[in-house]
Amino acid sequence: MAVQDKPEEMTRRQFLTAVGKVGGSAAVFSLMGTMGLLAPQTLKAAEYVPPGVNDLKLSGRKGQKVIILGAGIAGLTAAYELGLAGYDCTILEAKEFAGGRCWTVRKGTSVAEIGTVRQTARFDQGLYFNAGPMRIPQFHVTMDYCRKFGIAVEPFNNVNESGFYYNENVGALSNRRVPKRAAKADVRGYTAEMLAKAVHQNRLDLPLTAEEKSKLVDYLRAEGDLSPDLFYKGSSRGGYKEEPGGALDGGVRRDPFDLKSIIDSGFGRYFSNEYSYDQQMMMFHPVGGMDKIVDAFVKRVGNNIIRYRTEVKRISQSEDGVKIVYSSPGSGGEKEITGDYCICTIPLSVLKHIPADFSPEMSKAIASTNYASAGKIGLQFQRRFWEEDDQLYGGNSLTNMDITQIYYPPNDYFSKKGVVLGYYAFGGNADKLGRMSFLERERHALAQGGKIHPQYAKEFESSFSIDWKKTKFQEGGWASYSANDRKSFYPILCKPDRRIYLAGEHLSYMTGWQSGAIESAQIVVKELHERVMKA
Amino acid sequence: MAVQDKPEEMTRRQFLTAVGKVGGSAAVFSLMGTMGLLAPQTLKAAEYVPPGVNDLKLSGRKGQKVIILGAGIAGLTAAYELGLAGYDCTILEAKEFAGGRCWTVRKGTSVAEIGTVRQTARFDQGLYFNAGPMRIPQFHVTMDYCRKFGIAVEPFNNVNESGFYYNENVGALSNRRVPKRAAKADVRGYTAEMLAKAVHQNRLDLPLTAEEKSKLVDYLRAEGDLSPDLFYKGSSRGGYKEEPGGALDGGVRRDPFDLKSIIDSGFGRYFSNEYSYDQQMMMFHPVGGMDKIVDAFVKRVGNNIIRYRTEVKRISQSEDGVKIVYSSPGSGGEKEITGDYCICTIPLSVLKHIPADFSPEMSKAIASTNYASAGKIGLQFQRRFWEEDDQLYGGNSLTNMDITQIYYPPNDYFSKKGVVLGYYAFGGNADKLGRMSFLERERHALAQGGKIHPQYAKEFESSFSIDWKKTKFQEGGWASYSANDRKSFYPILCKPDRRIYLAGEHLSYMTGWQSGAIESAQIVVKELHERVMKA
Repeated sequence: MAVQDKPEEMTRRQFLTAVGKVGGSAAVFSLMGTMGLLAPQTLKAAEYVPPGVNDLKLSGRKGQKVIILGAGIAGLTAAYELGLAGYDCTILEAKEFAGGRCWTVRKGTSVAEIGTVRQTARFDQGLYFNAGPMRIPQFHVTMDYCRKFGIAVEPFNNVNESGFYYNENVGALSNRRVPKRAAKADVRGYTAEMLAKAVHQNRLDLPLTAEEKSKLVDYLRAEGDLSPDLFYKGSSRGGYKEEPGGALDGGVRRDPFDLKSIIDSGFGRYFSNEYSYDQQMMMFHPVGGMDKIVDAFVKRVGNNIIRYRTEVKRISQSEDGVKIVYSSPGSGGEKEITGDYCICTIPLSVLKHIPADFSPEMSKAIASTNYASAGKIGLQFQRRFWEEDDQLYGGNSLTNMDITQIYYPPNDYFSKKGVVLGYYAFGGNADKLGRMSFLERERHALAQGGKIHPQYAKEFESSFSIDWKKTKFQEGGWASYSANDRKSFYPILCKPDRRIYLAGEHLSYMTGWQSGAIESAQIVVKELHERVMKA
Repeated sequence: MAVQDKPEEMTRRQFLTAVGKVGGSAAVFSLMGTMGLLAPQTLKAAEYVPPGVNDLKLSGRKGQKVIILGAGIAGLTAAYELGLAGYDCTILEAKEFAGGRCWTVRKGTSVAEIGTVRQTARFDQGLYFNAGPMRIPQFHVTMDYCRKFGIAVEPFNNVNESGFYYNENVGALSNRRVPKRAAKADVRGYTAEMLAKAVHQNRLDLPLTAEEKSKLVDYLRAEGDLSPDLFYKGSSRGGYKEEPGGALDGGVRRDPFDLKSIIDSGFGRYFSNEYSYDQQMMMFHPVGGMDKIVDAFVKRVGNNIIRYRTEVKRISQSEDGVKIVYSSPGSGGEKEITGDYCICTIPLSVLKHIPADFSPEMSKAIASTNYASAGKIGLQFQRRFWEEDDQLYGGNSLTNMDITQIYYPPNDYFSKKGVVLGYYAFGGNADKLGRMSFLERERHALAQGGKIHPQYAKEFESSFSIDWKKTKFQEGGWASYSANDRKSFYPILCKPDRRIYLAGEHLSYMTGWQSGAIESAQIVVKELHERVMKA
């Protein structure tokens, strides 16, 4: 361990952990359930009981050697947690840098996609965008590691009513950028009016008393900003044509869109994006880039245990060990490394092409896992026009164009320049953008985004784009399971194949999230340690 | 001017300002309207054209002497803007410090309320709470001054789905803290179900085609997370009983509350608080306390032009000047100061008791203005249990108890201690709390807040409370006008009374906001300057 974290005072969570060590998780749950204090998120966090730091030593076991494939968040978590307990870990990492999809693009970042020339980021010093994960829900275990490692975080503005909706081919509101607040006020207003009137006029067959119906109507009046007689006539919530101000400047509210136009616009379908459990405010991100998390892990596990630019060529195992054959940087040849166990965090989209003596059902499960398409482009602008011209600080705009969404930087407000996420596309849109050259992607992002922000043309400086399916050693955004997949082959992936454990976001119910990678790794660490202690 | 701001490049807004100077605001609007680029908020900001820095000099006018009463945000804005144009300003401030209601309470802050002993904040170094304004909508002019002055801002977490609702005497969900996300998911789910079914079954008389109705039902299905057959059966949006995680840990969703209970709970009425134009995300606050804005103004106008602890005793004016009689610190006697004009930013609740030769209608308007009751308490806790135990980072909890709302600090995440806003009450609740002694307020805040956070008892360290009606030289939270007041006497307040101009949040349509104070001051500066240049 290169860096020792300071011993901390016993926090509630550590207390729970301590209780867990003595009495098991049942004791923790019973204790806290009685106290009735803790959120389910906290209870879950308490479930992970790290290996005792003296377990190996006290039991007289020799240092156990664990080969970890991949220095992404899962691999780093495993190395960190096992390292604390005295395990001898080595990480093989195919790229020149750690982090996997936790990857921050900044000045000088230079990679090729599969079948392309190198692309080098020409952003100004200090500017960046997170090509992979860019936000952390406040209740994810990722936040706990940030706290433990002293990583400063700041809010990620996932909700901003000053962002825009912009749709093409949707009737009267086509090709028009509409502030989110305006669309929300109108849709909520009209639908609240419809339901309030229906309830008030007793036209619905509801299992409610008259008093409850009256309360429901009161709620709807507030929800939709309805008139006393239950009409939606526009609302200041939607904004103003002329802003109110000082002295006699009372402002003029905007006129609401008519019902048909706002329904046709399809804007309402965007609202619920913000309602998803893992997209709700507050969200956070590390100050200075998501890879601050990677840096903190690497500092703690020690850069010396990571072998970079080592591509795994063959995975095999015997009764008493694992053997990994890998390409060796510089030498041109192949090397091998042996260990007691292997934790393989290689994305299954890549792993399925690596010769390995997994069981047939495991091999089949690996080959059957689908990965999501996802792509992003960072656009550096010489002026933060979204802040200066639109008073829009962070947040996003959504559109039915290929670019899908634009994110404004949730950091360094008031500074001169900024990197906007010019698109963050999935599925078919991502595939379409991914097939383009870097220059074509840039042009497409500028052309479509420029419809929402005419300032694009004048203020643009440089771009860097990524297609995750075409990114070597990743080949996909995240694992994507159907409900059937979860039942059929997913459980096979979760079981160790003799001495090899799979870990990563793909081995979790939080696919695509760093927390999925972390929790998957924690579970593997726990299982592996229990096995070692029983052996 | 003590500090000169660096000359900046010409931003779009400055460009507009320049256009405005030449062609007037009509030219600005015409230009930008054609370009179709700018938000109404930006257009409004462009309306303020500051006095030309050489206007006085070039016109051969002598330095004009302006006496400003009150060093709050309005007074400071007036002094700053007039100072840039060469006016000779003096500010009389009754308190020992500038800022007025823009007031950050930190270690050593020591004041008495009317009729009380002094209360001194015993917070740890670096901890604070904003007793007055604590958040800035992203589109307020206050943000422009922060940018101009180089004041770092960070998000104010006005929306947090992990915050709680807690109501007493509301049926089955009484005395139970419910995460906002749970209440929102259920209320939105049930109401979407009601309306979707009614629309689908053609039970409402809607001016929509079949296709539009179908789109509306699609929206409602997404809005409420309804099943394909339009039932609300709970949603992961509301959270989990057991969180999903790694490997086979798929999680268990919470059960929705039943329709009657959630309607009776009254939680739904809280949702729309977040919809108000000036409460919508994103919101911001200066890093380190709202009084960073005061510090920045004071640094620029020069502390030497502010006479602290000078209570205004008499205001009078003649054909060619104003005369202010004020108490003089130390000397015990009274002094007077004369000037060409006076800008009076004293709250009307205080001004109405100061002898002044205003016109009868102005005097009557001043005496007729009502002020809102508002009170806050800051509670220092030795441990950030809301973060550690509840994964709740900033945001608020709402309740129908006297304390009304609790705000968690939107800054210094992961640090050891924190100051929670233990209540922020208005109207009758504020009056009730205001009548209590400081100790009684603390006990009341701890007892009621402790029902939501049992950790209060163990972790509490110290408090500081404020009642704005009982705060000397303020006597109220903010001006509170009825629609009738705005029509009858408010316009009188907006007109200068001979050589005296009123300014402040109370002279705006953004009462209670710093932007109201700033915009009011800008308008007075503009009017005064035009008058001087015409004279």
